[in-house]
Amino acid sequence: MSEVITAVYEITADDPAARAALVAVEQSHELPTELAPDNAVRDSLARVRTVEARPGRPALVTVDYPADLAGAELGQLLVLLLGNVSLQDGVRLVDLELPADLAAALPGPRLGVAGVRALVGEPERALLATALKPVGMTIEQFAALAYDLAAGGLHVLKEDQGVADQRWAPFAERVPRIAEAVRRANEDTGGRGVYLPAVNGAAARFDEQVRFARDHGAHGVLVMPGIAGFAALARAAECFPGGVVLAHPSFLGGFTASASHGIAPDVLFGTLLRLAGADVSVFPSWGGRFSLSRDQCLAIAEAARRPLHALPPMLPAPGGGMSIDRAPELLAAYGPDTVFLIGADLQRGGNPRRAAERLLAVTRG
Amino acid sequence: MSEVITAVYEITADDPAARAALVAVEQSHELPTELAPDNAVRDSLARVRTVEARPGRPALVTVDYPADLAGAELGQLLVLLLGNVSLQDGVRLVDLELPADLAAALPGPRLGVAGVRALVGEPERALLATALKPVGMTIEQFAALAYDLAAGGLHVLKEDQGVADQRWAPFAERVPRIAEAVRRANEDTGGRGVYLPAVNGAAARFDEQVRFARDHGAHGVLVMPGIAGFAALARAAECFPGGVVLAHPSFLGGFTASASHGIAPDVLFGTLLRLAGADVSVFPSWGGRFSLSRDQCLAIAEAARRPLHALPPMLPAPGGGMSIDRAPELLAAYGPDTVFLIGADLQRGGNPRRAAERLLAVTRG
Repeated sequence: MSEVITAVYEITADDPAARAALVAVEQSHELPTELAPDNAVRDSLARVRTVEARPGRPALVTVDYPADLAGAELGQLLVLLLGNVSLQDGVRLVDLELPADLAAALPGPRLGVAGVRALVGEPERALLATALKPVGMTIEQFAALAYDLAAGGLHVLKEDQGVADQRWAPFAERVPRIAEAVRRANEDTGGRGVYLPAVNGAAARFDEQVRFARDHGAHGVLVMPGIAGFAALARAAECFPGGVVLAHPSFLGGFTASASHGIAPDVLFGTLLRLAGADVSVFPSWGGRFSLSRDQCLAIAEAARRPLHALPPMLPAPGGGMSIDRAPELLAAYGPDTVFLIGADLQRGGNPRRAAERLLAVTRG
Repeated sequence: MSEVITAVYEITADDPAARAALVAVEQSHELPTELAPDNAVRDSLARVRTVEARPGRPALVTVDYPADLAGAELGQLLVLLLGNVSLQDGVRLVDLELPADLAAALPGPRLGVAGVRALVGEPERALLATALKPVGMTIEQFAALAYDLAAGGLHVLKEDQGVADQRWAPFAERVPRIAEAVRRANEDTGGRGVYLPAVNGAAARFDEQVRFARDHGAHGVLVMPGIAGFAALARAAECFPGGVVLAHPSFLGGFTASASHGIAPDVLFGTLLRLAGADVSVFPSWGGRFSLSRDQCLAIAEAARRPLHALPPMLPAPGGGMSIDRAPELLAAYGPDTVFLIGADLQRGGNPRRAAERLLAVTRG
């Protein structure tokens, strides 16, 4: 038997089996089967394997896609899994299984958990991160904040995703200055904090910005796959070998906002972004400003780290309104192979360095 | 007063004014305002302009963003308009207004309505398109189908979005052969049909595929901004000057599936894809396999063509289960500055050329 990609969907419909059959056709041939040539019906038509009715819940459906349909391309895999049916309500992708050779052909994390840990010099304990914000600050303000937070012991200093190439702190002037501030903080304190500027240029400009970051003291980049495309993660890794690729979920929420549609958060922020090449995947944790549940968040962390063919594990990065006081609870829940992202709370009280030290202390207690 | 980008949101919340204030902060500073430096509060904080309660409907809210926040970049504009709040329910982007100089800095259609019409040699009547499918056909089968449909008088022959670089018809072998079939059909019938292969390679491979298409007889490309990123549309136009850039909505449905979340279809498939550089924007029309309403579809067409600073109008391309018999009704509704996309129905009956001729006849009647 030929290899298959198996997608698991939750289907909300009066007749889930009929709907499942439509999904299988829509996502492969997109043509009524009686019109397709015999060779295409044999070779490239997806087929429903199981339909499990579940009283009071959406039916659970498995669809097998001939693996050759993906053409060993991430983009084409996404087209298969949810391309056209993303435009219909009632179909939600909740799991997938890939053949080993397809998984091996996809980018996957270059650094993964071990690589990021090696870079920041922290072999086992929780990793701590913050966002440099707000946009509109001057370069001096950004550099001072970065210095303080790096000196306070944070491992990852990423720019806010809205910090782009604006007049208040243009990319080409800002990046070297913040990198220098982080370098000085590391030197002054013996730390090894990494600095990840946000890269939001279009196409060729994206490549230029990643290479500029690489050549001017940054340690990786923040990429928004919802804006730049999923392939931008692997592209960043190509343009910046050895750099950390951090995925930010901006503009990806369309897939997770409805319970009857889209993609389960663990599949999107866990499995798919890991396959796409993120080393760190930021997502909105429960109890913050966003609406994922505790179970959904822990499932993302599990999907980031569980065995998946030969792919390295990825670091989940819960964020979105986290606080220093909640860090011990979050650490207990997520475990140490996690990047805890705490933003505004480190700027409260006017002493970011001390706040960072306090965060470090409560997570090392 | 400085220039602003005005976003109009529908907000579903118990206290829409309070929620609107949170949206303005989230989408600009992403930091409580009491923690932001004075210069950033002055320069880069978004502000709620109006909140209109509407009994029984979501409140209508306008938010003004300092225009410099977009940094004249499409990606950053998308971050502003819906980046983080896409992860929250209850906020839907329903309109936007840009300053003229920002609109001028964004890609916009290179060909637009007039350019595509000039290419296909049809100055005023409706344009007719089809999808070459199903995936899994051999190159010979694709070429034969393309010949028949082009000879039947269709203006645009695009590949199905799931036709990528698979073993049954690899991209580099397929594209020249289909292009040659369309060229022959044009020569045999005096037509000027254009062939648009689907481009789904990642990053650098995307550029290569577009240039390959340019150099091997294609007339443009099909791009999926939901997969490749919105910037891929302009990138395709850069790599293929004079080529048609057709945007396909695969994987974009997350934004439009819920009435209380995401982006109104006319803003997404009309305004934003036009700003991003699509010449033709495919969307699922009413009455087909997808769920947009008639009003939503006509609003997309309106957004594609209405005056928008100096941007050329774009061609809306309703598709998704359209039939020859419905074409006159659709033509009456959408008007002639439209690409009507009809797929499977042209393959019914086993004579695609005759079906195409019939479609042409019913839309010329």
